[in-house]
Amino acid sequence: MLTYSFANIGSDSLYEHLYKCIKNDILQGILRPDDKLPSKRTFAKNLNISTITIENAYAQLLAEGYIYSIPKRGYFIANLDHSIQISQSTHLAEPEIETSFSKRTTDDNSATPFADFISNQTNPDNFPFSIWTKLMREIILDKSRELMTNSPCGGILELRTAIATHLKEFRNMDVSPEQIIVGAGTEYLYGLLIQLLGHDRIYGVEDPGYQKVAQIYRSNQVSCHYIPLDEHGIMIDGLDSNNIDIIHTCVSHHFPTGIITPISRRYELLGWASKSDTRYIIEDDYDSEFRLMGKPIPSLQSIDVMEKVIYMNTFTKSLASTIRISYMILPNHLVKKFYETLSFYSCTVSNFEQYTLARFIQGGYFEKHINRMRNYYRGQRDFIMECIQNNPNVSRITIKEEDSGLHFLMQVSTDKTDEVIVEEALKQGIRISCLSNYYHSNYYHNENNDTLHTLIINYSNLPPVIMQEAIDRLCNAIFE
Amino acid sequence: MLTYSFANIGSDSLYEHLYKCIKNDILQGILRPDDKLPSKRTFAKNLNISTITIENAYAQLLAEGYIYSIPKRGYFIANLDHSIQISQSTHLAEPEIETSFSKRTTDDNSATPFADFISNQTNPDNFPFSIWTKLMREIILDKSRELMTNSPCGGILELRTAIATHLKEFRNMDVSPEQIIVGAGTEYLYGLLIQLLGHDRIYGVEDPGYQKVAQIYRSNQVSCHYIPLDEHGIMIDGLDSNNIDIIHTCVSHHFPTGIITPISRRYELLGWASKSDTRYIIEDDYDSEFRLMGKPIPSLQSIDVMEKVIYMNTFTKSLASTIRISYMILPNHLVKKFYETLSFYSCTVSNFEQYTLARFIQGGYFEKHINRMRNYYRGQRDFIMECIQNNPNVSRITIKEEDSGLHFLMQVSTDKTDEVIVEEALKQGIRISCLSNYYHSNYYHNENNDTLHTLIINYSNLPPVIMQEAIDRLCNAIFE
Repeated sequence: MLTYSFANIGSDSLYEHLYKCIKNDILQGILRPDDKLPSKRTFAKNLNISTITIENAYAQLLAEGYIYSIPKRGYFIANLDHSIQISQSTHLAEPEIETSFSKRTTDDNSATPFADFISNQTNPDNFPFSIWTKLMREIILDKSRELMTNSPCGGILELRTAIATHLKEFRNMDVSPEQIIVGAGTEYLYGLLIQLLGHDRIYGVEDPGYQKVAQIYRSNQVSCHYIPLDEHGIMIDGLDSNNIDIIHTCVSHHFPTGIITPISRRYELLGWASKSDTRYIIEDDYDSEFRLMGKPIPSLQSIDVMEKVIYMNTFTKSLASTIRISYMILPNHLVKKFYETLSFYSCTVSNFEQYTLARFIQGGYFEKHINRMRNYYRGQRDFIMECIQNNPNVSRITIKEEDSGLHFLMQVSTDKTDEVIVEEALKQGIRISCLSNYYHSNYYHNENNDTLHTLIINYSNLPPVIMQEAIDRLCNAIFE
Repeated sequence: MLTYSFANIGSDSLYEHLYKCIKNDILQGILRPDDKLPSKRTFAKNLNISTITIENAYAQLLAEGYIYSIPKRGYFIANLDHSIQISQSTHLAEPEIETSFSKRTTDDNSATPFADFISNQTNPDNFPFSIWTKLMREIILDKSRELMTNSPCGGILELRTAIATHLKEFRNMDVSPEQIIVGAGTEYLYGLLIQLLGHDRIYGVEDPGYQKVAQIYRSNQVSCHYIPLDEHGIMIDGLDSNNIDIIHTCVSHHFPTGIITPISRRYELLGWASKSDTRYIIEDDYDSEFRLMGKPIPSLQSIDVMEKVIYMNTFTKSLASTIRISYMILPNHLVKKFYETLSFYSCTVSNFEQYTLARFIQGGYFEKHINRMRNYYRGQRDFIMECIQNNPNVSRITIKEEDSGLHFLMQVSTDKTDEVIVEEALKQGIRISCLSNYYHSNYYHNENNDTLHTLIINYSNLPPVIMQEAIDRLCNAIFE
């Protein structure tokens, strides 16, 4: 039977200490793959602590993939052999990144940071489990036949109709359900789009921007160029000089800079696209639901009369990162092409989740959820702002772009380099990324003052109880 | 208020008649998109029939996508504008084909055939709804935290462990969970494999075989050649003469011929693959669970010591075609490459379904389900054989490959061409396909006797109550 001492646990809670002890034994090979862990009750008795403590420690290990469970048989040590072969590229968080594999590393600090300003994972406490379960049960009772009837390749009509209605009410977008193509994540839809628009086209991504989009283009071996931004977003010159056919852009709220492209530049973009039949704009509207102040900005799609805009959005951010449902809206002539050339593909989302989500939207639960989440995020943001105000270094900090989405920029004045800031923060148990990490070119480094550094603060999933401490540790790393 | 006469309904049931009347009005544009249908109760009162009848008619229209429902608001006419823009290619059924869009056509015969020998859709009555619901509820109670923790890119460890254990017990395959990559359907995984193995490789598919695999390769603009089969499966000469790097094959039960590749040819295939670093075999084991007689054949993967086989399987066939979960097993050196180059992709299957399926397998329910289904399919097959025996034309029919999978071949002697047989059958309300439809080359037509025709009989989802009638109608189409 495993035994651990609880004599010198420092500031750790009992469960944290136990979790660390077991994790340590796994990483050192003392506990071997497929070894069985003691049952919660026996282990609790043996260590003279409560079963809740054991339960919490096991839950944490399970969530991080160190152990696995088999119902009625117990908990077992996972095989970590391949878990450390993770490419560096997965370590930068983007709206859909952050696998738990990437956390499973032997580096203790990055495995369980005290606070994570990179993760975009949604907070488990915010997911409407009871309503989701209720709707899922209803669906299974009401629609057993439809659940077993293969979905059209673009998704079930009820979900597409619900999305179209939502977009009309929420974004004032006129979209017919047939234009909507549902898929298991935007990454999957980007792959489909390459097949739809052509492998021989030249694709453009924003610099700075989502690194993952460029990775997808590279992985599919299509030409992909980085297009610089000015303070209004994508620079049209950059599109022309790189002979771009298809540009991926987040005009409503750019990631990570937070730039909102003004209407004049939007029309310039549409004008650029209308100059050639091969040109399209992929509008990624990933977090339009979470504008915290002011009224939402019309989407590019809604002012496009030339059928040049492909609109993308996802429920992974608004509902849960672990429910893989995204959608794209195709202009009518591309809808036709899609059904002619790609309708042999089955829809990648299970009927159970498509019908449940359809009812979740139709029943008004999605709107309620979004409103609740907006309040929650506003509270999170206000509280983290307060924590920053409380820090003695507040005069060396400027906050930018804090009114939209689930992150903001924190500009700090220090002699340390971005690399040193990230490293020192990690030593304090803080995961953080800098704006420079999202640049492909050296553009950023050359143009900016060397003592000014911009950090990206994702606050969506940070427990308020540790926020002050997290900000203080981060400031220590930056300024001390 | 809509009114229909029930005076001349012929042999139709009340609900069928009502369903046809409404469908007709939708197709003729009398009922317009987004028009509201009467509530079930009012409609029933008005037509003087029971609400159950209305309910059944609405359910059928809903399942086929003619109408949609909004909870608490009622039923509405769907917009069918794009529903008829379906490419011909989707009309041949393959294990993962058959969207309900492809059924939504204005051709009445193909819209609701009397019997469908092409569809591979699983029978709704066979899905273990109550256990699935119970497990889903348990998972939501037990694992709310894990449900909200992003899945590793290859799938959650519990599911991969469950699959590995199942493969050990069921197929005697030694696979570590890390080798298993879970994805939303095999089609998605083929796309990933192209990115993993290279766009510049030459891919081979079987002729005859799954047309969809070739479609995926073409759609991703990679070279794809058709490799002929002899009676033992893939011809090695064809691989050499076409400079194939990667061959897709169903050695355990070829679709649609039913060929089981003998061990000697399997070793030849492995030998071929081992001659070059760029060569791989994709082993599609799509219906190994449903071998109805004799003992299962070892997979290619299990006799591969050179890391040359990529094994593919899916739960869409064994569980439900509408739950999109498939997996592939990579050789170790490709696991490493996968994590190095493709781990930026998120897993495409939702956590809810991954955890539910993991528990479904771990709890022994999957094995029970498979056993139950195997009995069910054996019963279906025996019954359809009886129906064939009962037909006066039985002497002109030869049945082949009836011991494995959910289809068999029916060889018939007639002067009609394959095209005429398919057409005449459709006039009788029977959807059927011929072996020749699955050939890319003219090989089949040239080599065979012109009066011998081979039909493919998918019997998995045919209600026994209509089986005799379906066979008799088919035989009429073939022989009269």
